Amino acid sequence: MSGYRAAVAGATGVVGRAILTVLAEREFPLRKLRLLATERSRGTAVSFRGETLRVEVAGPGAFAGMDIVFFAVGTEASKVLVPLAREEGAVCIDKSNAFRMDPLVPLVVPEVNAGSLRGHRGIVASPNCSTIQMVVALKPLADAAGLKRVVVATYQSVSGSGRGGLVELDQQVRAIVAGGEAGVLFYTRQIAFNLIPHIDRFGPDGYTGEECKMINETRKILAMPDLPVTATCVRVPVAVGHAEAVNIETKRKLSRDEAWRVLSAAKGIVLMDGPDEGTYPTPLDAAGRDEVFVGRVREDPSVENGLDLWVVADNLRKGAATNAVQIAESLAAGGLLGSA
Amino acid sequence: MSGYRAAVAGATGVVGRAILTVLAEREFPLRKLRLLATERSRGTAVSFRGETLRVEVAGPGAFAGMDIVFFAVGTEASKVLVPLAREEGAVCIDKSNAFRMDPLVPLVVPEVNAGSLRGHRGIVASPNCSTIQMVVALKPLADAAGLKRVVVATYQSVSGSGRGGLVELDQQVRAIVAGGEAGVLFYTRQIAFNLIPHIDRFGPDGYTGEECKMINETRKILAMPDLPVTATCVRVPVAVGHAEAVNIETKRKLSRDEAWRVLSAAKGIVLMDGPDEGTYPTPLDAAGRDEVFVGRVREDPSVENGLDLWVVADNLRKGAATNAVQIAESLAAGGLLGSA
Repeated sequence: MSGYRAAVAGATGVVGRAILTVLAEREFPLRKLRLLATERSRGTAVSFRGETLRVEVAGPGAFAGMDIVFFAVGTEASKVLVPLAREEGAVCIDKSNAFRMDPLVPLVVPEVNAGSLRGHRGIVASPNCSTIQMVVALKPLADAAGLKRVVVATYQSVSGSGRGGLVELDQQVRAIVAGGEAGVLFYTRQIAFNLIPHIDRFGPDGYTGEECKMINETRKILAMPDLPVTATCVRVPVAVGHAEAVNIETKRKLSRDEAWRVLSAAKGIVLMDGPDEGTYPTPLDAAGRDEVFVGRVREDPSVENGLDLWVVADNLRKGAATNAVQIAESLAAGGLLGSA
Repeated sequence: MSGYRAAVAGATGVVGRAILTVLAEREFPLRKLRLLATERSRGTAVSFRGETLRVEVAGPGAFAGMDIVFFAVGTEASKVLVPLAREEGAVCIDKSNAFRMDPLVPLVVPEVNAGSLRGHRGIVASPNCSTIQMVVALKPLADAAGLKRVVVATYQSVSGSGRGGLVELDQQVRAIVAGGEAGVLFYTRQIAFNLIPHIDRFGPDGYTGEECKMINETRKILAMPDLPVTATCVRVPVAVGHAEAVNIETKRKLSRDEAWRVLSAAKGIVLMDGPDEGTYPTPLDAAGRDEVFVGRVREDPSVENGLDLWVVADNLRKGAATNAVQIAESLAAGGLLGSA
């Protein structure tokens, strides 16, 4: 029997379930699959490739014998469980914020920096959803023309907050359509038919945690520790799919044609930019897809070597599950996971 | 009897009705009010300050005897009707794109450039909704520290497209909530639970008409013909209220405290920026209000003298109706409208 012994921690969450879907779709070689969650979900039946699996509780002993564990749990849970799983011998791929900026932990988007997986110490971090899709678009442009500055404004769907966000949007929309009042339970403000420019906690400088993540993670992944980046992160009433208006300055001039060529040749990108035919990506185009969609490419004459882009991806897939599974594939291909 | 003889052309549209509301609320001095629209709306009853008015048809002779006419019709209709009304002796305040960039026509946001009303030749243009709220926020900062560059990404509500946009969002949401398919009739793509980075037509350089308007109108209103501006304009599934993530570079450094002071002292602005208390403006806060709301003010260290802002306003009010009525008030106060 070949394949890896793997576990998914947080298997009943929105991202955990997406990891199961992506593992099956991409036929990741599995010899054994263990589903883990909190006590509350113990025994829950989950079907995977026609088999019914029962959810077990994540905790000491749960990771023994595993080659790899996908963590799709919150930051505080990851801080406890990831070191435990590593001690029990598994390589951990963690989607939380717990280890991303740890200098000993590679922070990986395989299209961009798979090379940094070499020498991992048992933990690999997957970046924040909004970072992943942006760096996939930035990397080929940076390689082609150098990167001087990034200004990004995001349009982030509620599934980025997990099931709570999806339920809140759905319930508020239903209440309003029925002529009632939208109760606010999960977010700080009504999200249905509204926008919330507040994701994660505010820092003393006025930037939110989400904005800081985009800035710091982008620098680490691109290995450009001083790259000037500013971000405004906004929650929008969309279920799945994040979009980003990205303005960049490159070191050398890139014409629109050159940018199109570079982007369409890049791994993991679908260039969808036919303004004459009204073609551009929207969240609905990206939902259920693994690629990063780029459109609205324009030379920005307001600055030397300026370029505007519109970048869209499925935040549950490329922004989370797909990226984690691609990390596992890269580890496997590089012989960095033990033998299948 | 004192007050002006006024007409509203396009009185049955979303903006036309908002003009009536604002005229009543602000007690604009009226001796006579005539409501005009197309043949289709002839005879429609509209109540104004407790009186029932009947809609008449806009065309030759309809403007005779009027001191002022508010135009809330499309660009093509304005091109025909505005010159007619001016010939019949009325001062025209036009919200369409027909005359905005005409060097002989003042393009006015009263808080910013009321002075340019002097010497008008019978036509005053009101800017595009997304421009108005941005320049209200930019003007005091430009006065305080000079302005070097503007990068803006917009989040524009469907009411910016008139009733058709509101109906489309409503019908699509209802269909989806009922478990059906969202029909796409009005926009190019589904807007419910989606984003459309396409407002107005695409130009050969990839910028849309809406983006060009923001760039060109901002330069004209601020009297900075070479100001570097780039814009990405996006339709979002919000009914009323546009938001904008605005990144600027100023000539002199403005600290966050200084920016707060400048903005809170400025005419027409409500500073709503208490990140410690989770205070920031959303479209729901701005809906039904006449001011421009500014929050999320941050120093942007990615560039010299950088500043990030989040600017929100009711696109039907300050973005259209209120601005038009404020232009009329400024004309009246300056004796530029004949005598009341």
